This record gives sequence, C-alpha cells and structure tokens, in this order.
Amino acid sequence: MKAEIITIGDEILIGQIIDTNSAWIANELNLIGIEVGRMISIADQADEIIQAISDSFQRADAIIMTGGLGPTTDDKTKQVLCDYFQTRLVFDEDAYKDVEKFFRERHLEVNEINRQQAMLPENAINFPNPMGTARGMWFTKDGKHLFSLPGVPYEMKAIMQQSVLPELKKLSGSQYIFHKTIMTVGIGEAFLAEKIHLWETDLPSFIKLAYLPSPGLVRLRLSAKGNHPEIVQNAVMQKVKELEKIIPEYIYGFDDEPLEKVVGDILKDKGKTLCTAESCTGGYISHLITSIPGSSNYFKGSVIAYSNEIKANILKVDENLLKEYGAVSQQVVEAMAKNTHQLLQSDYSIAVSGIAGPDGGTPEKPVGYVWIAVADAQTCKSEAFHFGNQRMQNIQRTALSALNMLRLMLINA
Amino acid sequence: MKAEIITIGDEILIGQIIDTNSAWIANELNLIGIEVGRMISIADQADEIIQAISDSFQRADAIIMTGGLGPTTDDKTKQVLCDYFQTRLVFDEDAYKDVEKFFRERHLEVNEINRQQAMLPENAINFPNPMGTARGMWFTKDGKHLFSLPGVPYEMKAIMQQSVLPELKKLSGSQYIFHKTIMTVGIGEAFLAEKIHLWETDLPSFIKLAYLPSPGLVRLRLSAKGNHPEIVQNAVMQKVKELEKIIPEYIYGFDDEPLEKVVGDILKDKGKTLCTAESCTGGYISHLITSIPGSSNYFKGSVIAYSNEIKANILKVDENLLKEYGAVSQQVVEAMAKNTHQLLQSDYSIAVSGIAGPDGGTPEKPVGYVWIAVADAQTCKSEAFHFGNQRMQNIQRTALSALNMLRLMLINA
Repeated sequence: MKAEIITIGDEILIGQIIDTNSAWIANELNLIGIEVGRMISIADQADEIIQAISDSFQRADAIIMTGGLGPTTDDKTKQVLCDYFQTRLVFDEDAYKDVEKFFRERHLEVNEINRQQAMLPENAINFPNPMGTARGMWFTKDGKHLFSLPGVPYEMKAIMQQSVLPELKKLSGSQYIFHKTIMTVGIGEAFLAEKIHLWETDLPSFIKLAYLPSPGLVRLRLSAKGNHPEIVQNAVMQKVKELEKIIPEYIYGFDDEPLEKVVGDILKDKGKTLCTAESCTGGYISHLITSIPGSSNYFKGSVIAYSNEIKANILKVDENLLKEYGAVSQQVVEAMAKNTHQLLQSDYSIAVSGIAGPDGGTPEKPVGYVWIAVADAQTCKSEAFHFGNQRMQNIQRTALSALNMLRLMLINA
Repeated sequence: MKAEIITIGDEILIGQIIDTNSAWIANELNLIGIEVGRMISIADQADEIIQAISDSFQRADAIIMTGGLGPTTDDKTKQVLCDYFQTRLVFDEDAYKDVEKFFRERHLEVNEINRQQAMLPENAINFPNPMGTARGMWFTKDGKHLFSLPGVPYEMKAIMQQSVLPELKKLSGSQYIFHKTIMTVGIGEAFLAEKIHLWETDLPSFIKLAYLPSPGLVRLRLSAKGNHPEIVQNAVMQKVKELEKIIPEYIYGFDDEPLEKVVGDILKDKGKTLCTAESCTGGYISHLITSIPGSSNYFKGSVIAYSNEIKANILKVDENLLKEYGAVSQQVVEAMAKNTHQLLQSDYSIAVSGIAGPDGGTPEKPVGYVWIAVADAQTCKSEAFHFGNQRMQNIQRTALSALNMLRLMLINA
C-alpha cells in the first residue's frame, strides 16, 4: 500500500511554522509497512485542496491530510472535503458531548465557535479526539482512502494512534519494510564514508544505505524491503554486525536513540549519578539530560555559571585561574568539573566553557573555541574543540561532544 | 513570481528527519515578494525527481530544490539534473580549489569522494558554498529557473543568502506581500477568537488572518497583498493598532520574536540581571534565555535543583518546608526564588517546581501540576498551573508561563 501526506496551511507555505506532522506520520506508516511516496504542503484554499487530492489519488491508495480543521474562520478544509466527497455537514450528538466534556474539564463554557466542531460529514466515519475538539474523519471513494486530521501535533498523534493506524493496518497489504539506523558520533560524513567504503560496496541490492548528518552526529540508515520479515531483518542485522566490527569506536547506539538517553541508561545501570557545570551551553546539556523521562534517578542538577562571578563564588574556581588563563581554558574547565562534582555530591560531572558567539571571540580564542571536562572521583579528562561560527550549532556540538566524552569515560570505567 | 520548493531525500519520506529547509526558504522568498505555492518532498530517485520538476514547472516560475548533493553514493540529484537540463558534469577548477581549502582549514586531506564535489554541470551557473563542499547550481530552461542546493541546513542557508536570494530578487516581479504576526501568550485559540471576533469580521478583504497555536502561545498572522507597499503596510498596521487596544494584556511582541528575547530586551534596557532556579524544567528556561546572542549581559546563571538535596543544600530551602509541603508547593518555589536571587546576586529570579511526567504524579499533585515564582528584591509573586500529561509540553509551557510572569513583573515595575 502506498500513501501520500498532505499538510494544509498558509502558515506552512509562508514558512512561519515547520511541518513536523509529516515526519511523524511517515515514521508510523513505515512501521506498519505503508510506504510514503510524497509529502505535499498546500494553501488552505478550496481549489488547491481539491487539486492536491486528485493528484495524490493518481499515485497512491491513501492520503493522510492534516490541518485546516480548527474552529476559526481561516480553516476551510472540512467543507471542501464534503464537496469533494459529495456529502454535507450534519450535527453529531456524540461529538458535541465530547466538546462539552472537553470544556467542562477545563472549567470553561462552550462558545458558538467551538460548537461548530460537532458539525461533521454525513458520509464519513469520524474519530474521537482525546486531546482536543476537532475530530478525525475517514472518507472513502473508488477504493481509495482519505484520513483528515487536525494540524495541532498532539491532537493529530492521539487520533492517529487511537483510530487511524489500527484501521490502516487492516487495509494495508503484506509488503514488509525494515529500517535500521546506526547512530555515530565523533566523525564527519565523508571520513565515515571512506572508512566503510568496502562494507558499503558489498551491500546486497535490496538493502539501501543513507547518510544522515546533523550537527555533531551522522546517522547511517539501512532500509530493506521484502515479503518475508525474517529474511529481510536477518540480512540487515548481518550487515549491522559487520559494521560494528569496522567502526566500534564511533557507534553509540541505534534507531534514533538520543545520546543523552544512552548515557542516562549507562548511569542507571551502574547506579551512578551525574551533575553538570555549564557556561557556554547555558543549561542545554542539563535540558537534554532531563528531557528523558526518569532522569531524576541519575541526574542531580547543575550550576549554570554564565558569569565569572558564579564560577568563582558558587563553583569556587580560583580567581587567579580565571585571571591568568581566562574562563575558556583547560585549567578553569577542569576546576569547574572537579568542584561541581563535590558541591553537588555526584559520581560524575560534565563541565563546559567556550565562546558560543556571535560576539566574544578574540584571535587566540575565536568563536567556536570550547573546553570540555568530564570527571569522576579519581580522574578528570579534558579536551579542546574548534567548532564553527553558528551560536546554536556550537551549543549543540558542545553538548554532544561532552555527552560522548562522558559515555567513553563510563564504558571504559 | 511564484515558486515551489522541492526537498529530496528518503530520510524525509520515512520520517527520520524533519524538513526544516522548506520553512526557512519560504520565509526568505516571501520577504522578497515571491509566493510559495507548494512544498513537495520526494524520494531520491531519478523518475521521481524528473516528474516533480515537470509538475512544478507547470504551476510555478521557479523551483528551489534541496538535498541529494552530498558526496556519498546515495545522492543522485546532480546527475539527474544534468539529464533533465541536457548537460553533463565537468571538472571545475575553482570549485576544486574551494574543496581543497575547506579541508586544509580543517587540517584534513581531500579524498576521492570529496573530489567529486568539483564535478559540476557544464550549462549551469554554480555558486560557492561558504560552509561546505557541495556547490549551489542555477539551471534555466524555457524562461523557468531551478536552483539546486545542498540539504544540510546551514550550507543551504549560506548559499541562499550569498547567491540565490540576490539573483531571485532581480528576477521577481513587483507584487508585494506583507505579513505581520502578533504574538500572544496566556489565552487559548478559541477564547482569543471570541474576544477579537468583531475586529476580525471588520478586516478588509485583502487582509487575511490566521491563528497559529503552539504549546503556550497563539500567534495571529495578518497577510496582505498588493502593488503598493505603503498602502498595504498602512492598512495592516492600522488593524494591528486596533488589536492592541482590544487585547493589550495578551500581546507580548511581534513577528515571531521569542518571549525570551522580549524579556531579555527589557532587562537590558533597565540594566537589570536575572537568574533561575529550575526543578521540573531541568535547565530549559536557562537554555531559552541563553539561546539569545548577548544574553550574558543580563543573565547570570542558574541552579538546576533536580534533586531535593540540591534544593536544601545549595538553594538553602528549609528542609521542614520540603517535608511539610513537598517540593511542588508555593512555599518551596517561593523560597527557591528568594534564595537564588540572593545566592546568585541578581536583580530578578525565576523559580519553578512541578511534575513534568510521565511518572511522579499523585491524586493531589498530578502530572502537569506546576508552581512558578518570580521575585525581585522587594516582592515575590507565585502561581500554580495545571498543564497536561505530555512531558515536553509541560516543560515548554512552564518555561513560557514563567517568562511571561517575569515580563509582567518587569513592565509593571
């Protein structure tokens, strides 16, 4: 079965919001063996919507459409779909009860605008929205399917998981798709390509390889298709095993597992705790670590020492070190790691200090120059990095490099 | 002039990466009066690429295409474009010099894979890539234009800004598009719609309104088109002024300005400093604040007190308060705000404590229950919130609510 994804919204076409729905939907469809042929973003206009649906139905068996279902007047999709599928909007008692319940739980009254959410197409199946008031809709025509969902990501996801994906699973055929992603850190795309060139040349023709670089990481994705899940999976996993022997030092995990989760899992397994002392990353490392559910089991906290005062007064970094070597130096970052470790009574610590930019660079210490230290009770390891001139990228690369230094310290401990 | 954006990459279609390039490109095109009709994501396959280009050229005058230009073997776009535009790849001396320079600066040798980046189409203009090795390309056919750019966002942006946008500006016609976005915080979409209903009904037909909700915020976007920039702008700004009189308490800024930037600007203007004490947000507020260049002028730092130990030992929150009321309570969050404020010697402080989830909720204090306090030398204001059951959303909403409480304290000071 082949599907296409259509996202509706002028806000997407003028670049005001980034379409994150399509990626989430595509990932879920792949997991149930449905391939996504195209993703299309169009304006919230009747002719555009109708044209895009007709085009997609030429190529695909199913369309997942998001957006345009809000209660406000700029959303036109519901009426347009009724026109296309030759039906009309009728008042739905169940849907209205849900709208009432949604507002009652929030101690609010239903207004006239919200009441419109209970007007639904007569000849379509509609699905409850556990997170909001716009229901999902399932239209069928000439053996093709269109699922229309609200554009708010958590509402769309809730309806997909509860109603649409189970229905699609029943509709989809037997072709099996298997993806395996190998997560690497600490090596650039072209150098990685050179190191694994022979392995790559040796891939069977039904396994495809993609390089997916992002600041600080390269993901390697293997994709294979076939009718027998076991054969497809075994062939891919065989190649993964080979790769693990070729580049063991660069592989930190699989399948989009974040580095902060891998590091957290190792800490949890070892029953050890962590804290951070951050200057240039301004809390980003701490944020990454605490974005993982359950991180309070191993993460104690941080001192974000954005000013030198805090480095001296709270982290007790010797003021002479700060004066003599500057805040971005091996001496200061090692003192930060060692002192924070004791101050916050943790088994391990990460400390970073650098020049994130765009200002603050000097000829000796340009923007992108960063010192990172990781410490346990016995040892402190530090390293200098030269990143680029983009503030957010420098923050991201510093965080990933720091987490990777800690990972290596943990697995070699 | 009308454009379409085509992004190439299997990694987009299987949902492994989110396409952020299209939004950025659309925003830049709009600023120079070029409308984006569609955004399309397709597979890295010759027939798909050719079909998508032919389709887009039926509807639009220009195509901006990203992706598929990497040095690795899964990227096929360059050869496909040569076939479509009936030209061939030739070795480009200048491009090769740039590739060599790129690697020399990184103390690396050029390998054979990287050398391929200097093979470029004979009948296309190529543009230098200041951030990488894949050049941009400009093909022309029957008065239509195709610009092909690498998919790595910072490389694509660098080539767009340096070369493509200046060329497109010359090509584009005179129709003018004006967008103005009003940023609101503290009120939901439907309630906002009700409050501004009369104002909305009264909009002239050439001004369109869109509601753009995201966790904690609703953006209102006005869009107008016309031939006379001054008339279009004046009409929109008149409506903005009216709106400012209707909902002054909810408007914090304009044009996608982040709340953390608005708060930072107020602090800078007043010459005041800020610190945070974060529990459930785990450094996210500090990260938002420090994502703004120049934030070191007003932001001193944070204590991320993820464990109660740190709340007691570092922030000196009375252990009896923690025992009697629990970490998520008015008493504790106010103590955190007042003590951090003194400890980090700042004029203002933000403190948060809550249950981000998915675990840790109780019947009295469910997941999503959060206390926030803001303090200056004289006063401390605190408030409880009930957010939802999504961890990342709870972290985001807590951060935005906290920043808004500080904003209100600052402008009323």
